[in-house]
Amino acid sequence: MNDAYSRLKDRFSRIATVNEAAAMLGWDASAMMPPGGGAARGDQLAVLAGVAHGMLVAPDMAEDLAAATAEGAWDEANLALMRRAHRRATALPAELVEATARANSACEKIWREARPRSDFAAVCPWLEEVVSLQRETAAALSAATGLGPYDALMDTYQPGIGAADVEPIFAAYESFLADALPRAEEIQASRPAPLAPQGPFPVEIQRALGRRLSERAGLDYEHARLDESAHPFCGGTPSDVRITTRYTPESFGQAMLGILHETGHALYERGLPEAYARQPVGEAAGMAAHESQSLIIEMQASRSDAFLSWLGPELHAAFGGDAAPYAGANLGRLWRRVERGFIRVEADEITYPAHVILRFRLEQALIAGDLRVADIPGAWGEGMQRLLGITPPDDARGCLQDIHWHDGAFGYFPSYTLGAMAAAQLMQAARTALPGLDEALGQGDFGPLVSWLRVSVHNRGSLLGFQDLMRAATGRPLDASAFMEHLRGRYLTRQTP
Amino acid sequence: MNDAYSRLKDRFSRIATVNEAAAMLGWDASAMMPPGGGAARGDQLAVLAGVAHGMLVAPDMAEDLAAATAEGAWDEANLALMRRAHRRATALPAELVEATARANSACEKIWREARPRSDFAAVCPWLEEVVSLQRETAAALSAATGLGPYDALMDTYQPGIGAADVEPIFAAYESFLADALPRAEEIQASRPAPLAPQGPFPVEIQRALGRRLSERAGLDYEHARLDESAHPFCGGTPSDVRITTRYTPESFGQAMLGILHETGHALYERGLPEAYARQPVGEAAGMAAHESQSLIIEMQASRSDAFLSWLGPELHAAFGGDAAPYAGANLGRLWRRVERGFIRVEADEITYPAHVILRFRLEQALIAGDLRVADIPGAWGEGMQRLLGITPPDDARGCLQDIHWHDGAFGYFPSYTLGAMAAAQLMQAARTALPGLDEALGQGDFGPLVSWLRVSVHNRGSLLGFQDLMRAATGRPLDASAFMEHLRGRYLTRQTP
Repeated sequence: MNDAYSRLKDRFSRIATVNEAAAMLGWDASAMMPPGGGAARGDQLAVLAGVAHGMLVAPDMAEDLAAATAEGAWDEANLALMRRAHRRATALPAELVEATARANSACEKIWREARPRSDFAAVCPWLEEVVSLQRETAAALSAATGLGPYDALMDTYQPGIGAADVEPIFAAYESFLADALPRAEEIQASRPAPLAPQGPFPVEIQRALGRRLSERAGLDYEHARLDESAHPFCGGTPSDVRITTRYTPESFGQAMLGILHETGHALYERGLPEAYARQPVGEAAGMAAHESQSLIIEMQASRSDAFLSWLGPELHAAFGGDAAPYAGANLGRLWRRVERGFIRVEADEITYPAHVILRFRLEQALIAGDLRVADIPGAWGEGMQRLLGITPPDDARGCLQDIHWHDGAFGYFPSYTLGAMAAAQLMQAARTALPGLDEALGQGDFGPLVSWLRVSVHNRGSLLGFQDLMRAATGRPLDASAFMEHLRGRYLTRQTP
Repeated sequence: MNDAYSRLKDRFSRIATVNEAAAMLGWDASAMMPPGGGAARGDQLAVLAGVAHGMLVAPDMAEDLAAATAEGAWDEANLALMRRAHRRATALPAELVEATARANSACEKIWREARPRSDFAAVCPWLEEVVSLQRETAAALSAATGLGPYDALMDTYQPGIGAADVEPIFAAYESFLADALPRAEEIQASRPAPLAPQGPFPVEIQRALGRRLSERAGLDYEHARLDESAHPFCGGTPSDVRITTRYTPESFGQAMLGILHETGHALYERGLPEAYARQPVGEAAGMAAHESQSLIIEMQASRSDAFLSWLGPELHAAFGGDAAPYAGANLGRLWRRVERGFIRVEADEITYPAHVILRFRLEQALIAGDLRVADIPGAWGEGMQRLLGITPPDDARGCLQDIHWHDGAFGYFPSYTLGAMAAAQLMQAARTALPGLDEALGQGDFGPLVSWLRVSVHNRGSLLGFQDLMRAATGRPLDASAFMEHLRGRYLTRQTP
């Protein structure tokens, strides 16, 4: 380690600390802030982003990056990630960054008003501007990194993964789906209809129970908070992680499973390597990796037969009423229901990837210039028909449903399904490594799983690229096989309750 | 307005925006943050302070300050305040600022542990270091500003007010107190003992009531939050102000009056001139001015006979039980009780200034080098004996009770009593301007008072220095007469219930 590298560590630590401040203010904006604070908050976040960006592109940063040397796997990886961050930050002219921020913010605002009215025409010109700037950004990043334009955008969210990695995995899933979906529906129809637990389910009880469940999953409230927001998320910093959910007294499933989902994200942040805190190599390994950690807790562990058989009596003790709906098998029928729907965030495990595949294909075409913004609604309808055999009745339930594109996030969507598939592949490896895993989950014990994840994923930070992380943890790069096997076991086998 | 001034406005706006971010994180640290987040938060605040300081002392800032011209009272005052801020920031060498931050933080930590054990010996060496650095700071600020060393510290908290302004006011009060305190005690003893309302007083009810009272006082929750913290305070920013209090089911007085106190601070922030938001001239006019706004709401308005007669039935409706303790006259006896005590924050209106006068004299002597840190406990005991005729049984109830010195705040204490006196003088002027003021308070209506404050104080920001602000609002600079007249009416008149 030479002086230049040592200075770089200080610089990046300072940048990360400014970003921590911004992360906390972002959490506050969603979970605490009164509406009248919005304008000032926007300014605060913009100034902090400008300060962090200014530190990253400072002239002496480039000198130190050129002169730095590092020894050992961690510091070598760290230096490479510093160079990557600098290369990406300097690739984009300040005017493009500013124009993008303005266009995204303006489009998102229009979208918020237009979505309830299903008014794509109102959004269209604004989204055209967003897409046009994203294409410029993609071109600039492509020139700086040597990646293809769309890959350069994907690389923002999940470093090291491009369309060529995703294409065969999604293709395999698409052909699986054509057969699996009708079969899952048929099996589901042959089973008893799920019984609904009788409410109301007081929010105070849900809040205490949600906290207890997240604690069982390993979240330490000396370093965490659980609050409420319109859209549940995990924010904050590794030593002070903030998760949110949304409660309604009419039901509890969404809130409890949502808390477990965000707990998965939070455990990842909490488990990042402390020795490299505030260094690029100490960060999470990308959005697909992050989603794998939320989904392994929510989908793989918490919706498993074993865990539901433990959870049922806990829920019944909390809410009272008739016991039958709280039987593990009934909770499975309730919370693993397959249904072809229009809305991605409400989709089940089998159909969810179809929503992502649709968006992945469309956004590739938009960035390539092969699809015009005005043609999105038509292409959306065709895609949904082909993938799920349904056609959205309007754009609110079609191309206007997600914030992502309207806020300038292109290349993000694949992370959801890569995360779901990685979660299945990691769970498969964990089950092999830990024969008592399901027995522990059957006692409400996440300990063995989370300990394994800590060593296999969390503690590794960004030391390994995504595929190397999967190789190290599971013995092979990501593919769709474990996910399809998981779905076969859960949805396509007549014996399962 | 020339280009240099226009650039300065942008620079100062950016600095203020960074400071807003820090203010929000400070609020979070006290009201929301889990304990494990403390270390990272300290780093975040230090980095933001460094960023803001770096912007202020940047070389091109000095160039613009030299070249700038401004026209009109507001911009002229703004430019003068910019120059003041720059002069003060550049007066202190970076090493002194850092050493001070480290010494303050270390001493405060030791003090937190030593206070419960009343262990002054443990604190002494650390406080010596703090005082030594404060003396250096005072000397450097004195050299840059032409003020005396202690005045230069006072100027940090209440610009434009020095020891020579305070001395005659405090001297007048001291001779008033010698006669007034025994007389107030005698009158109090001749009255019926106050009846205590019967609890418990559920926290949920207090929370709702506290919010309603602050709304009545004019706080708009589109731009505010009310939360809980160990030490109540008002934080946040003018468009997103955050007040806190502390509840206990055993009593409600402290929480309700505390909320009204912080509401006074919050109304000041909310009423600052929007046209000069994030500019020095748009800020509050100092700590004494700020305290005058909290105390005019809490002490002058909320503890007035008129308001208590309205408040009593409201409280009774909220908490139920026997009505007699909720009579306005009884609430007055409960909440305006005079008692010679050791603890400043628990002191009544009459004895509070004695606590401040003691600290003012001692900290002047410490900064002048006329009092050694080791001799503080003895000097404290003598001072309390002379001022209030009592001697603290230990240092926990003596010189270790306040955080201020142990955190490096010298020159702050006078603001409390200047604020109390300014509140009385402003209330006197408001009563003259608004003959219906007390009638309105008797109907729980703060409207006339707050509207008057908005025009007379809030909207003026830092356009006027403290004494000019008092002149503009009340016709004369601050003196002790209105405060003494207020105390005579409330505590020294036999007729008052």
